[in-house]
Amino acid sequence: MTDHKETKDMLGRGGLISVSRAQQLLRENLRAPVASSEEVLLAEALDRVLATDVVAPENLPAAPRSTMDGFAVRAADTYGASESMPCYLSVTGEVLMGKPCEGDVNVGCCHKVPTGGLIPAGADSVVMFEHTVPVDETMIEVVKGVGTGTNLIQSGEDIRKDAKALPAGHRIRPQDLGLLAGLGIDRVKVVAPVRVGILSTGDEIIPHTQVPKPGQIRNINSIALAGAVTRAHGIYTDYGIVSDRKEIFLPAVEKAIAENDIVLFSGGSSVGVRDLGQQVVEEVGPPGILVHGVTLKPGKPVLIGMSGATPVFGLPGHPVSAMVCFDLFVQPTIAALSGLPPEYGLPRPSITARLTRNINSAPGRLDVVRVQLQQTDSKTWKAEPVLGKSGSISTLSRAHGYFLIDEASQGVQENSTIKVFLYI
Amino acid sequence: MTDHKETKDMLGRGGLISVSRAQQLLRENLRAPVASSEEVLLAEALDRVLATDVVAPENLPAAPRSTMDGFAVRAADTYGASESMPCYLSVTGEVLMGKPCEGDVNVGCCHKVPTGGLIPAGADSVVMFEHTVPVDETMIEVVKGVGTGTNLIQSGEDIRKDAKALPAGHRIRPQDLGLLAGLGIDRVKVVAPVRVGILSTGDEIIPHTQVPKPGQIRNINSIALAGAVTRAHGIYTDYGIVSDRKEIFLPAVEKAIAENDIVLFSGGSSVGVRDLGQQVVEEVGPPGILVHGVTLKPGKPVLIGMSGATPVFGLPGHPVSAMVCFDLFVQPTIAALSGLPPEYGLPRPSITARLTRNINSAPGRLDVVRVQLQQTDSKTWKAEPVLGKSGSISTLSRAHGYFLIDEASQGVQENSTIKVFLYI
Repeated sequence: MTDHKETKDMLGRGGLISVSRAQQLLRENLRAPVASSEEVLLAEALDRVLATDVVAPENLPAAPRSTMDGFAVRAADTYGASESMPCYLSVTGEVLMGKPCEGDVNVGCCHKVPTGGLIPAGADSVVMFEHTVPVDETMIEVVKGVGTGTNLIQSGEDIRKDAKALPAGHRIRPQDLGLLAGLGIDRVKVVAPVRVGILSTGDEIIPHTQVPKPGQIRNINSIALAGAVTRAHGIYTDYGIVSDRKEIFLPAVEKAIAENDIVLFSGGSSVGVRDLGQQVVEEVGPPGILVHGVTLKPGKPVLIGMSGATPVFGLPGHPVSAMVCFDLFVQPTIAALSGLPPEYGLPRPSITARLTRNINSAPGRLDVVRVQLQQTDSKTWKAEPVLGKSGSISTLSRAHGYFLIDEASQGVQENSTIKVFLYI
Repeated sequence: MTDHKETKDMLGRGGLISVSRAQQLLRENLRAPVASSEEVLLAEALDRVLATDVVAPENLPAAPRSTMDGFAVRAADTYGASESMPCYLSVTGEVLMGKPCEGDVNVGCCHKVPTGGLIPAGADSVVMFEHTVPVDETMIEVVKGVGTGTNLIQSGEDIRKDAKALPAGHRIRPQDLGLLAGLGIDRVKVVAPVRVGILSTGDEIIPHTQVPKPGQIRNINSIALAGAVTRAHGIYTDYGIVSDRKEIFLPAVEKAIAENDIVLFSGGSSVGVRDLGQQVVEEVGPPGILVHGVTLKPGKPVLIGMSGATPVFGLPGHPVSAMVCFDLFVQPTIAALSGLPPEYGLPRPSITARLTRNINSAPGRLDVVRVQLQQTDSKTWKAEPVLGKSGSISTLSRAHGYFLIDEASQGVQENSTIKVFLYI
């Protein structure tokens, strides 16, 4: 890469900025979430983001239920009961699964009840089978007393009517589908999926289905970025390979902006294409270019701008750089436009591993170092750096994950414990 | 739950076993992967598992390319060049992006080359622009010499022809799509998705779209398990709610076994339904029941069996227990039948957090404790246990993740550092 050229912004807006500053600038300029929402059936709602709070329309459970197989009793009747001094109760009924209770539990009486069965009126607790001894068909001994509320779940104990079941901005997980089903909710209002337009440019780029002539290379970035958009729960439109002549490229980017919530372009790694990218992002403004270049390796020449409310990313042509910039800038933008509130963000899960060799880093730069993992024993993982040029897509494909060397650091020593974020 | 009853196996096969022993038994009985494979286009291949190794059909890149904007030179011509003693080269050509090279680079000459451009015959390295000074239109000064191979990527340096690009059993990630595209591969042979049949049973269970009468409850498990199957990259068939009379339930399970690679049933939490589950799993054998009950909370009453090569899981009726058992037993089974080799398994990523209160655990039992996470400062997360009965689906919906208390432990103290696995 042409270090000297890239440290200055040709539009006179200053030089490289840090990744965190670029992320902040981007966040400040986003209008979230995407306006439109839609109603979907629960069966289609997995991984969608709620557009509004969901409030419980009823108590769950609707009525108290036993959490044990046993006998529904009045707790007062069993106070003090023990092996040596049992109490005796008449069995005057039985609760059947899925049926209403028949009759009340009177003083000195009990009803047989299965796990999940309703608690009949009069009863306030359940004695489990194991703490009873049958005397005959109509009477039991209770050998261990219970307090009020023992072995049952109260009405509304799972969730109470009018409580917030799930907040707006929540991504629906399998267990959330369960909660919504339990409340009898079959339709939810969700944010429309974020639409991402993907363009490639560069005279040397051809569709991956074609055979390259000398000097041509197949389009790697479009399909890899499309996969990354899908993983980020966005939907993509692939605009294919667009000529890098400005009179063709600019209208193609404008069309993609009109049709999407986010636009990505990538492709040629030559100076000419980088210059074109800058001109185009500036012209589709205001506000135009927000970020031109970050102190990041790989991924330094990333270009970030806005056309009105639509973020436009000029990703580096090298595939590894493009994917690293996707993770750091595009994925959080998709999340924000999906309606996920920033404060919602959980930390990114990781594993710890031991680095197998020294890795140097230039201070003032964030390094994203790809690693292969190998298990040494049941608890320990070794992380072997996958070295190679940022144009080498195989380095990213061989990697199980990556670790970061931050701006303050000059490198990480062999055998250091590092935090590896996995490419799953 | 009726502790006493569940510690013995009513079929006389011994009592509860540990989770790891149950997982091992299950693994030993699986025949992996599912036999059938299919060919898909690259555009449909994300997250699919390769059925065969993919071998590179050609070198990537096909020919050496420049990694800098500069001049393609013979390194020997530049040896010793410096600011004080530059060497002079004639500019006799220019490489254009996407075009074949025109002419060779002769001794004392160079061709202008962009990043990504081909290296003309004769040249063996690239001097970057920044290390040159133009003399006139046809001559440059080189102020820093280069060694052979500097600033270029060799043919096959990314991946070499006939090398294994991706192994069988690999799940295709976005960057893998990029690698395959770069190699011109547009179709891959992948393992057919694992088919999972889901049944619910229990007299009290009604579809979640209906209004329960007294004693009835809505079906929470089917849709939550369906979501979990989708997340695990399986495809599900929901057989709905089946009567818990054996003459109806057994043929329904047999039909699901015939039509799927894995069968899950869940539903009623009463003794009657548990007994029915055991009978049915035994009758669809051999081998029948492998595991009846594990030392796990929640999730103790899980039932695991095989009908020929088809795993059959009787999941506990309580939704939280059902989902915990899914994570521990069903998800790894889907992975194994998908063709993911066991040794492929990366560790599960986690975050560390501080526990906000003491949690007790019975020794000899694996506890899965759900937690809510809260950020206390930029680096630290607090994990607040979400307490509640295993029938409370809202506890799972409120949770951001879980931690484990293993069989040897009697609990975890407040302020301990714990490893939280996230529900993402």
